This record gives sequence, C-alpha cells and structure tokens, in this order.
Amino acid sequence: MNKHTPQSEFATPTVTTGALPSSRKVYTHPKADPTLAVPRREIDLHPSANEPPVPVYDTSGPYSDLSVEIDVEKGLARPRTAWVLERGGVEAYEGREVKPEDNGGATGKYLAREFPIRHKPLRGLPEKPVTQYEFARAGVITKEMIYVAERENLGRQEMLEGAEEAIAAGESFGAEIPPFITPDFVREEIAKGRAIIPANINHPELEPQIIGRNFLVKINANIGNSAVASSVEEEVEKMVWATRWGADNVMDLSTGRNIHNTREWIIRNSPVPIGTVPIYQALEKVNGIAEDLTWEVYRDTLIEQAEQGVDYFTIHAGVRLAYIHLTAKRVTGIVSRGGSIMAKWMLAHHTESFLYTHFEEICEIMRAYDVSFSLGDGLRPGSIADANDAAQFAELETLGELTKIAHAKGCQVMIEGPGHVPMHKIKVNMDKQLRECGEAPFYTLGPLTTDIAPGYDHITSGIGAAMIGWFGTAMLCYVTPKEHLGLPDRDDVKVGVITYRLAAHAADLAKGHPAAQVRDDALSRARFEFRWEDQFNLALDPETARDFHDQTLPKEAHKVAHFCSMCGPKFCSMKITAEVRDYAAGMSDNEKADLERQAKEAEEGMKAKSAEFMAQGAEIYVERE
Amino acid sequence: MNKHTPQSEFATPTVTTGALPSSRKVYTHPKADPTLAVPRREIDLHPSANEPPVPVYDTSGPYSDLSVEIDVEKGLARPRTAWVLERGGVEAYEGREVKPEDNGGATGKYLAREFPIRHKPLRGLPEKPVTQYEFARAGVITKEMIYVAERENLGRQEMLEGAEEAIAAGESFGAEIPPFITPDFVREEIAKGRAIIPANINHPELEPQIIGRNFLVKINANIGNSAVASSVEEEVEKMVWATRWGADNVMDLSTGRNIHNTREWIIRNSPVPIGTVPIYQALEKVNGIAEDLTWEVYRDTLIEQAEQGVDYFTIHAGVRLAYIHLTAKRVTGIVSRGGSIMAKWMLAHHTESFLYTHFEEICEIMRAYDVSFSLGDGLRPGSIADANDAAQFAELETLGELTKIAHAKGCQVMIEGPGHVPMHKIKVNMDKQLRECGEAPFYTLGPLTTDIAPGYDHITSGIGAAMIGWFGTAMLCYVTPKEHLGLPDRDDVKVGVITYRLAAHAADLAKGHPAAQVRDDALSRARFEFRWEDQFNLALDPETARDFHDQTLPKEAHKVAHFCSMCGPKFCSMKITAEVRDYAAGMSDNEKADLERQAKEAEEGMKAKSAEFMAQGAEIYVERE
Repeated sequence: MNKHTPQSEFATPTVTTGALPSSRKVYTHPKADPTLAVPRREIDLHPSANEPPVPVYDTSGPYSDLSVEIDVEKGLARPRTAWVLERGGVEAYEGREVKPEDNGGATGKYLAREFPIRHKPLRGLPEKPVTQYEFARAGVITKEMIYVAERENLGRQEMLEGAEEAIAAGESFGAEIPPFITPDFVREEIAKGRAIIPANINHPELEPQIIGRNFLVKINANIGNSAVASSVEEEVEKMVWATRWGADNVMDLSTGRNIHNTREWIIRNSPVPIGTVPIYQALEKVNGIAEDLTWEVYRDTLIEQAEQGVDYFTIHAGVRLAYIHLTAKRVTGIVSRGGSIMAKWMLAHHTESFLYTHFEEICEIMRAYDVSFSLGDGLRPGSIADANDAAQFAELETLGELTKIAHAKGCQVMIEGPGHVPMHKIKVNMDKQLRECGEAPFYTLGPLTTDIAPGYDHITSGIGAAMIGWFGTAMLCYVTPKEHLGLPDRDDVKVGVITYRLAAHAADLAKGHPAAQVRDDALSRARFEFRWEDQFNLALDPETARDFHDQTLPKEAHKVAHFCSMCGPKFCSMKITAEVRDYAAGMSDNEKADLERQAKEAEEGMKAKSAEFMAQGAEIYVERE
Repeated sequence: MNKHTPQSEFATPTVTTGALPSSRKVYTHPKADPTLAVPRREIDLHPSANEPPVPVYDTSGPYSDLSVEIDVEKGLARPRTAWVLERGGVEAYEGREVKPEDNGGATGKYLAREFPIRHKPLRGLPEKPVTQYEFARAGVITKEMIYVAERENLGRQEMLEGAEEAIAAGESFGAEIPPFITPDFVREEIAKGRAIIPANINHPELEPQIIGRNFLVKINANIGNSAVASSVEEEVEKMVWATRWGADNVMDLSTGRNIHNTREWIIRNSPVPIGTVPIYQALEKVNGIAEDLTWEVYRDTLIEQAEQGVDYFTIHAGVRLAYIHLTAKRVTGIVSRGGSIMAKWMLAHHTESFLYTHFEEICEIMRAYDVSFSLGDGLRPGSIADANDAAQFAELETLGELTKIAHAKGCQVMIEGPGHVPMHKIKVNMDKQLRECGEAPFYTLGPLTTDIAPGYDHITSGIGAAMIGWFGTAMLCYVTPKEHLGLPDRDDVKVGVITYRLAAHAADLAKGHPAAQVRDDALSRARFEFRWEDQFNLALDPETARDFHDQTLPKEAHKVAHFCSMCGPKFCSMKITAEVRDYAAGMSDNEKADLERQAKEAEEGMKAKSAEFMAQGAEIYVERE
C-alpha cells in the first residue's frame, strides 16, 4: 500500500485485548433490574488455597471479555441508548455538521479518518428530567443508579460480614459510607449533589460509574494528542490501555489538529466516561489566539462535544477578572492551561470571563445531554510556595456559587482541586471544598507534596492523592512520571494508573470501605503461604510483580518453592511462623497465663535495675543544665 | 589472569565517583570548632537566574569530591580517630582474631579477599564517658555534635530569614524544631534521648549525622549479599551508589558466606553510618540452625562487629516468649527475620530470649564502642490485617522499658517501627512510640499502606513513610520496587532512595523545617522561567529528569526553549502568567477595588438567580423522600 495514502496514515487502531492473568469477567444481574449485566473481574486462586475467587472492580470494559469480539471500526455496543429512550424526554435530531475547524483545518493525508459510523445525537427536551441529578431529585431510580449500586458492591447480594465493624474501625472524616450500597442510596447521594454518574446520553457505550465521597475512590487518566506528538491509533489504544490497568475514566486533552475525529474514535470505543476541556478545542478554532475566543465559538464547541458524547466538561468559570491580579506575586503564576487562556482573554478585553457571564447557558446546554460539570481550578497552585493562597481560595468560593447554579439548572457537578500542596496544607483544601461546594465530589490533581522530584511526580503526588482521597476526595487525577518533563508513553501511563490505583485503594482502606481489605488479605495470605502465582495474580500489576520475581529467581520451580530470594532456602521467617502456630495451638490457657506472669516479673526486675542505674548515672554524669 | 585465582574472583571494588550535575562540594568550618570541615553540596544555577547556589544536604561523602583521590584498597581517611583519642577514656587493643566461621567457613577461591589494612580497635574504659549520650549527659559538647549542628544548618552561620514563620506555619505535632541548630541544642537533644549520632569509635571514616525528630528526616538503604546472589564488589558499590543518591545511612543485611570480609570493605569505605542485625551473622555461625544459637556466639558476634566499626545494631530484644502466641492468629505471622529467629529459638528451648535476659551485658558491650541501639520490631505487622495488634504493641511497650535500661547504661537508642499499616492506623503508632519510648528516635520501615501492589511497594510505603515522617519519625527505612519479590539491583536501589528522599523532604516541609522549602522554591522558579537545566540540576534525580525530558524533546535547543512538550510552542500558560504580572504591576489600588466591587455585584446576581431556580426546581421535581 502506498505510504502516503490517507489509509496508511490512519489505519484502524489496534488495541490491547484479553483477560488479565487468572482472571474472568463476570456479569451479575441486580435484583432491582435483572436485565442489567454488571461487570466485575474475578481472580481465581490456586486450588491449594481453598479460597473463593477474589472479586475486584473492573474498569476494562469488553476488551478483557474473551467472549466479546472487538471491532474498533464499529465501536462498542450501545445498550444504554435503550435506557435513555425508555425514560423519554429526549429527541433524536440531525446534529451539528462537522466543520473543517473542528479538526484544525486538517485536510488530505493530514486529516485523521472519520469514524465510519455516524449516530444521530439525542438531546433532552425542556421541562422534562434528563440528567441523573434531575431524576434523582424527582425520586426516580434510573438504570444507571441500579447499575452503579451493583458495581460498587462487587456483585455482593447482601451484607458483607463485618462490614459495619470495618466502617466503624475506619476514619472517614464525616463521610457516610453504608455497609451495602442500594440503588436508593445512590439516588439520594446524587439528589444531594454528593455524587455524580457522568454519563452523556450520547455515550451509550459507557458502563456507568459513580463518583462520590461515600463510594470507592475513583481515578482518572489523561490522554491526548498534543501539538508535538501522537496519533489517532495511539490515543484509542492509550484509552484502552489506561482502563485495562484501572483508570475509571479518561480525559482527552488533545490539542492541535484532528481533535474532533480522534475524539470520535475514542468515545465510540470507550467503556468509561470521557472528559474534555472544551476551551482547548475552542482555542484551536481561533488558531491558538486566546484573545480571539468568543462565546459563540465556545458554545458551538460545547454542542459539538456534547453531541459526540463527552461525559464531563472541565469549565474554568471560576477564574474571574477580579482574581487575576492575585496571582501576580506567585512563584509559578497560573499553571492551569484553561485558567491562563481565560486570564489572557480577560486581560485582552478587560472584561469578565464569558464562562462566568454565560454560565447559565452553559448549564442549559450541558443539562440537555447530561454532561457533568467538572468545575475547573484554573488558579490552582503550581508550586509548594503558591499552595492555599488567596487566588486559589477565591476561585474555590466562586466554584461553590457556581455549583448551586448548576444544580439549580439540573446538572451534575464535581469540583477540581490542586495541584501542589505540602502535606500539612492538604486537609484544609478538602474541608473548604466540602463546605463551599455543598459536598459536591472533589476531583484533585495529586496534590504533589514537594516540587523537588521531577521524574518521580507520580510518587510526590501519589502521597498527596492517597491522603486527600482518605480525607474525602472522590476522584484522583493521575500524574505520570513524565509530569513537568514530557509526554507520557505507554509505560508511563501504566505506572501512573497503577500508582493512583494503589493510592485510591489506600484511601478506601483508611476510610473503612467495607470490602476494601478483602484483596489485601487474600494477597497477604498468598504471600504467607508462598503461593507466588496467586500473589502475582492478585497484584494491581501482575506482569511487573512476576517480572521482578523472575529477575532474581527465574526458574519455574521457584514459583512453587517455599522460600523467596530474600532469605534463601535454608532459613525462612514465614516457615517459622507456621511452627509458632502449631506451638500456640498446643498451649493451654494456664500455660499462657503462666508465661505472662513470668514475663511481668522479669520486666519488674528490669525496671528496678534501670532505676538503680539511672540513679548511679545521675551521679557520675551531672547534667550541665 | 586465571579466572579461578582468588584475585580475579574478588577484584578491587570499583565505585561511582564524581560530582552531581552542576554541583560542587563545599566544606564549612563551624565557629565552635573551625578545625572541622563540614560538607554540603551546592547546586549552581544558570547565570540568567541571578540567584545564589542552592545548598543541599550531602550524604555522598568524598566520592563526589573531585579533589579527593579514592582508593578503595586503603579506605577513606580516618579523621575522627583523633577526636576520640583527644577525648580520652579509650584504649587501643589487639582485638579479636578473625575466625573461619566469621566468613561462613569460606576458603580458597570462595573466600572474599580480606581488606588489606588492619586497624587496631579502640574500646571505652569503664567509668569514663565514651558514648555521645554519656558526653551529652555530662554536659560535654563533642566535635560530632558541633559537626552535625553545622551540617543540619547547611552551612548557614546565622538565622535564616523567615525561619520562625516557617516553623509556625508548619505542623510538627509537638516536635520542637528550632530556627537554627546550635551545638548545645544537639547536646540537649541527645542528653534527653531524643536524638542520636550513630558513630562507633571504630568507624572514624564516618561523617557524623544526627537522627532525631527535631532534625531533618533521615533515610536508610539496605544492602547485603544474600544466600542467593551478589558479591563484595557489588556490595561496596551499592553502599557508594545509595549514598550518592541520598541514603543517610546503610544497613548491611548480608547473610551467607563472607559476611565479615564484605563488611570490612564496606565500613572502611563508608562515609555514612553502617547498621547491621548481628543475629543474622550469629545464625550463619551455627549453620543456620536457630535453635543452636547461644548467648556466647551472639556476644562474640557483637564484639566482632563492634570492633569493625558497625555504628548501630538492630537487636530484637523485645520479642519475648510471652508474646509469641499472640502472633498465632495473624494473617502473616512473624515477618521480621530477626523476630522469627528468636521465636524459633525460644520455642525450641522454651525459655526467655537471651537478648532480653542478657540485655545489660549487650548494653555494656555497645557502650564500650558507642554502637547505638536500634531496638528491632521483631513482631511488626507484615500485612494490613495484622497492623497495630496486641503482639506489635506488647513488643513496643517492652522496647520502651529496654530504652530506659540502655540509657541508664549510657547507650544511644532508636526504636524500629512497622511495617504494613493502613493510613488511619499510622498516627497511633507514632504517638504510642513517643510515649512508650520517651521520645527516642523512631525508625520505621515504610509503613506500606496497602498490600495489593507488589512491584510498587516503594510507593505504597512511600505514602506511609511521608506521613509517619511528618508525624515525627526520625528515620525512614527505604523500600525498593523489588520488595517482597526479589533482590534490588542498582536501579532499584536508586529508585528506593529517591522515593524515600522525596518522602523525607515532604515530611520536612510539612513539619515546617525552616530551610526545607528553599529547594522547592528554587526549582519552581526554574520551572516557571523555563530554565530546564536548572530544573534538572535541582531535582533529586537530575539524570532521570533530563532523560524524561529528552524522550519527548531531544534537541539541545529545546533545553533553552520557552515552551515544553505539554502545550507546544504556540500556546503556553507560563508565558501568559508573565503577561499577568505586567498587568497587575500596572494596576492602581482603585482599579483593584473597583474590580472586586464589580465581581461582588455579579456574584450577588448569580446568587439571587440560583435561589430562584432552586425554588422552581423544587416545584418541578418533587423529592420522594
């Protein structure tokens, strides 16, 4: 084939499929609606374990289901269209024509191929509920709510043993985690504005998920072709790859050309919610000149993306003219791209941001498709020095006001948060966000707890992410090792996702999520019993765990050996513990009491001696002070 | 050369030398004793920055000093011998003969070559102060105390501007961090048992360092040839490599053969304190059969290692017979190697641990050489399920008692801590340790905040380490990506060290250490001003930062380009911020006030509307509840 034909330039994306090691895709059917099939992953253990499979939350969609034939040219199945139509209150319509500027004016061989199928968009009718928030407020439990309840419970049909104790033993800082998630609990949380199900009615390929403080902590991965690098194929695969390793949803932060067509391929093939920052594309439409932006261009972009099925929009409507000068003395000024675009526009026109002045119209557009708000933190701190300053908190207060408007207009809302924050300044961010924004879900970038480790910012931020997740953040935006330095490749995306998965899980554990510790315990038992294969398979990243083990002990036989590389075959602390168990099992209560008595006596003797020495010592070495 | 001669098997170790990028070794001379030369590293910035060099704590010793000729066959210079002799109260003596079992009976080509020079050991005389604790209690400021004071201040000769504000703005949970470290403050902290300077009188190559809650958080790296892999050359280089990247001290956890000779090479070439777990070598001397251990073998091993110059011993004297059965119901039993060795011994003999019954004699030996105690947590939890259980806390209480004895006997003491602990159970560990052990420095392994990420346990533990360091832990024992899976290689050691350096630094920042933020701010300014080279050079790992940048933008020209790979050349948020500064600089106070008034009015309008919508919404969608 000719290398220069459009076909060869933009071949069908090839994506990663197949099950994770020792894992099966399982679908359960909620009692409240048995027509729904809710996925989870089950990890089978070695027969010697004599343990049931371990159920884990599964973000990977049909790509890890061996029974589903993946055809990226067709996109995923669209079951949710029927749910939306069944509820009514929507209409199908022709939709906006794709314009050349939607793809940055790319033509010929530079234009990314269109997705082969065009679906007519749906939109909500006025005066009828269309968003999950509106249904929740109206007391209606949607299929999405039933679905996410089942999903959060990992298929459990009843109370988990010890669930209430686990919650009581955790520390959730005022969250109200129930032992079992019911559809009505989901509805209530959404109605209170404390949780969202990002699910555009035009993204029926999506497996619904819930984001809120009383649910499992979610994580987000960012992808996007930038002006410098990347292609359509890479972007679709990045989405599939990120969700395979545990990204609950994905933001497409593309800039440059082909934004529209790339996004279509991603959404049609995405089982997870897709977020965008519409101002990025709007800026491309005015050739990157921020001062040329207009409300009309922006509005058109919102409709374009809403029709495609974007599930949430980052909108930096809290960056107001009055706050701009508050950033002048910062060490790192305005580091949010969206924030600085709007700052530049406002400075050029010396007028209030059109995102703020047109906020109600934005709400009306987003409501009609059930696009959730992700109210952007355009003034987030970009360095430790700038954390928690006047600009940041002024914006947060405005976001609180905008949350009320958006709710009043029927929209789902979450709030974005920092950034770079030292550990002792993290909790005040969470507390203020909950207060200002009426407990709307918080969605934070890290935060990075120090600036001095570029190349390791997945870790500097993973620390902050675990902490703020514990304190109440509902979704953590991942950071890759390339942060501040370059564009993440496939390996970086994986490392970022796994880092954030472990941070989110650490938060779930600390909050006392009733079923969170099941996986830790299963893995620890496998570790203790030298079931190496189970240990790998239960890991967040089985490939890396296995690979690291094999670097030291490559032979297959070592995977069943009852020793590891740390101590070698002769001595093993885990083996000794098995002996301890036999010993303890043979002890009577009298023997135990006797031991304790002896121990106490010996300790009393020690104490007496230390007092004696102390007195001596005090004589020999007279303190100066 | 014949491959089978001992010479070729055990060649002279080659080690990594040279300065870090754009860095110079600087020595300052404390006012209190100008004969001392205290090292730090200074990072030079690009002339365009117009900023002074950034001073950073330097653990790398003479290896990064271009003016020092390194000869591993001779070992490092031994200036501290003169300090010790000048103080008096010590005697040189012949010392113990090296026995075949010290090297695990290795002979011929299997025996690692002896270090070429043999120094006569020193030991303290009775009734005269020899340890830093004894001198501190006697009101004597040693050269080591003057040295570490200077070192902690990073060469500052006076109060740092804003130091008191920084401390006040931090949260140190009751620590008492001073704005400037004086030698007398150091003495007081040591006298109170709140800090230690691990510095065996037979390790005069060492650059003294202080470990305590009111000083910079320190980190530790573990090395050691195991029964399965590794060689002398590798171990010496691992020590040099780990300290190059920031390990404040190193534990030699060798098992198997050649322990004695390997350790001698390491200590003679080590500028940082070396710790060991003597029971490991004692076990080798009885062929790995725990029940064959005796007090005599152990005692002999303590003397052997103390004469060599080991600076601190992990001693699991808190693992008592009465506590063993408390571990029987654990998910992962006893995971400490030392703890399980002693448990096995106690079970076999059904008698109290000889480490406990002979504790006073241990103190007397350690005092004579000023070997510091690291009271081991042999019953630390090995899984989330076992965190903070009865066994762990029973041992910690005993460690508190032993701390008093050791202090009474004149020894320096720190306390080892967990392990695997979910976030919400970390702080109680710190609080209990401070209470039980009279604020003796805490030295923790992580803790790991979840069990489900083998391959990423530097991160699961880095989260816990940053937190517990903030809460008051004085030293963090690093964890590498290979934890639980295999032996760390060179890259793993580096990743482990950098991860723990960033965790320790995050803790220093949060505690409000007065000078901690200097480096963050310098790096953030470099980032903001597109001084890429400065950004790399100020990073904890300049090589990785540069490498990651080059993967996306390899050209040299890009290192001075005023854009980065994230946004490309056309649009840049950092550039816009520069415009914001110009704008703000041009604004009058009246203009600012006017803006704020306008903003407030607009917000009031928004509020009124949201109230109106809310009322409407409540009519349309009647809540069910």
